[in-house]
Amino acid sequence: MNQQEQASSIDEVLSSIRSHQRILVTSHLRPDGDAVGSILAMGMLLRAMGKSPEVVLADPIPVLYRGLPGANSIKSVADLDSHVDAAVVLECDSIGRTGIQALAGHPIINIDHHASAKRFADVNWIDPSASAVAEMVYRLAIAAGVEVTPEMATCLYTGVLTDTGSFAYEAVNAHTFDLAGKLTSKGALPGRIAERIYFSNPESKIRLLGIALATLKIDSGIAAVFLTHRDMESVGATDADCEGIVNYAIGIDGVRVAMFLREIENGRYRVSLRSKGDVDVAAVAERFGGGGHKNASGCTIAGPLDSAVKTLMEQVRPLF
Amino acid sequence: MNQQEQASSIDEVLSSIRSHQRILVTSHLRPDGDAVGSILAMGMLLRAMGKSPEVVLADPIPVLYRGLPGANSIKSVADLDSHVDAAVVLECDSIGRTGIQALAGHPIINIDHHASAKRFADVNWIDPSASAVAEMVYRLAIAAGVEVTPEMATCLYTGVLTDTGSFAYEAVNAHTFDLAGKLTSKGALPGRIAERIYFSNPESKIRLLGIALATLKIDSGIAAVFLTHRDMESVGATDADCEGIVNYAIGIDGVRVAMFLREIENGRYRVSLRSKGDVDVAAVAERFGGGGHKNASGCTIAGPLDSAVKTLMEQVRPLF
Repeated sequence: MNQQEQASSIDEVLSSIRSHQRILVTSHLRPDGDAVGSILAMGMLLRAMGKSPEVVLADPIPVLYRGLPGANSIKSVADLDSHVDAAVVLECDSIGRTGIQALAGHPIINIDHHASAKRFADVNWIDPSASAVAEMVYRLAIAAGVEVTPEMATCLYTGVLTDTGSFAYEAVNAHTFDLAGKLTSKGALPGRIAERIYFSNPESKIRLLGIALATLKIDSGIAAVFLTHRDMESVGATDADCEGIVNYAIGIDGVRVAMFLREIENGRYRVSLRSKGDVDVAAVAERFGGGGHKNASGCTIAGPLDSAVKTLMEQVRPLF
Repeated sequence: MNQQEQASSIDEVLSSIRSHQRILVTSHLRPDGDAVGSILAMGMLLRAMGKSPEVVLADPIPVLYRGLPGANSIKSVADLDSHVDAAVVLECDSIGRTGIQALAGHPIINIDHHASAKRFADVNWIDPSASAVAEMVYRLAIAAGVEVTPEMATCLYTGVLTDTGSFAYEAVNAHTFDLAGKLTSKGALPGRIAERIYFSNPESKIRLLGIALATLKIDSGIAAVFLTHRDMESVGATDADCEGIVNYAIGIDGVRVAMFLREIENGRYRVSLRSKGDVDVAAVAERFGGGGHKNASGCTIAGPLDSAVKTLMEQVRPLF
């Protein structure tokens, strides 16, 4: 999509916003930093435009993001006021991904930066060149003539920071830094935000990482780490504490594919797959009913652990 | 130092460079990404100015930075041509810090961005507002009218990235992002560079991290982790594999001070200290003959391990 088409999509989004008053803002299940930061900024933007936004998430807000400006006013689905006129949905490929079935039938504005974005809504603004959906919300604020406050800048910076792996992913370019610089000028504090996200880990998370790394196995460029129920309990760990563990395995020199398995229920394991370069692990995840991106995907698989790892290894080995 | 004083320092540096031909370029012992990246870029800058630079390091180049453009042409002290006319010394507070005693008596240009910088040289350009010495080398290139090539941009970006902890430290501001954006426009590839630095860890480093985290102790906001000789040997780990381990301990919510001890020789331990906010661990390191910055310092201490940890805890506890 060229610049002109982008501009016309932004116009459509703004005109749809202007024609509604009570607007629900939401994002996907298991929300990440970009989802939480961007819906909060979107809510502020709508308020600045004179609208009455309802910022809602079906899943709980991860602890890391509960300190964001306005985070404590995010509603759960149970608290949801059903009298909304329209909804802005950020980086979801369907209504289902929001976890809010009540949205069906409402006018929906879909804003997404994923390559896998779907045009499922009434208004669809899709820009895979954006490093985070936060970047699109920023552009919307500029187009709407809304002043970016330090609170908005903080929320948007959090989105950019977390969705680029702290400026480490392939998608990072001069635009990303230009945006980060602008948000910093508007009042985002990079050191403070990074400290909150990367240096405020629960003790259980760090202990869990130690346990997981002790299980590391590497075979012909494929690395595996895992955690059992018992491991989780031994340090009082939560689901969120598992986030990022797979990155330690893929971050090893010579490793092309990494898998992290963790026991969930009924002897099943949740699997995170990561790959480097051209190795496509989404295809493997899909074979087990999961999905994702080429370099990052997930699925669940039946245990016992040994046979699950073996089965996955067999599926991964022919990839490279 | 104001902008005008900075500009006059840059002029002095350039005029000193112009009056010499064979110029040695070096940085400190135990070089980090900013040291290696910046001396390489400085060498390229001097070559572009028609000079004959000798890029030298007294200590070996860490594996992570051996892939940088020009890294394989960095000389060791043994290979050093003694007929140099002058030396550019990056971020050292004395000739001793370079590990190259032969520099004494030569005209020296000292470029440093540390608050603790010393004016020990003939020409001294000090700017503590720079997030990395790479930022100063970039400004020098611009002032000299030298085109920043993709190779220079790659080296300088590596300096900025590593010296800001991937844009996470307090010192990061809009200038830092402006520079990162410019370097990216000049050909630095942020994703590629970050992958090389953060996702090409030796297997031994990841295994060592697991072992260290299993030793984690936390008491009243003070965290300690440690490694013995035997731990290091069990996974074939090197000194460099220990880098960053202390950050996992300081990165725990509620931890104000973290220490990482590792056995070196004669029953002694090398200690890395980290703190958050106003807690000054440099003072503690100094009491044991070490030093550093307020939030990051180091020293060595006699074992056995238990009493070393106890002694350090006693010194740290009154700090907050």
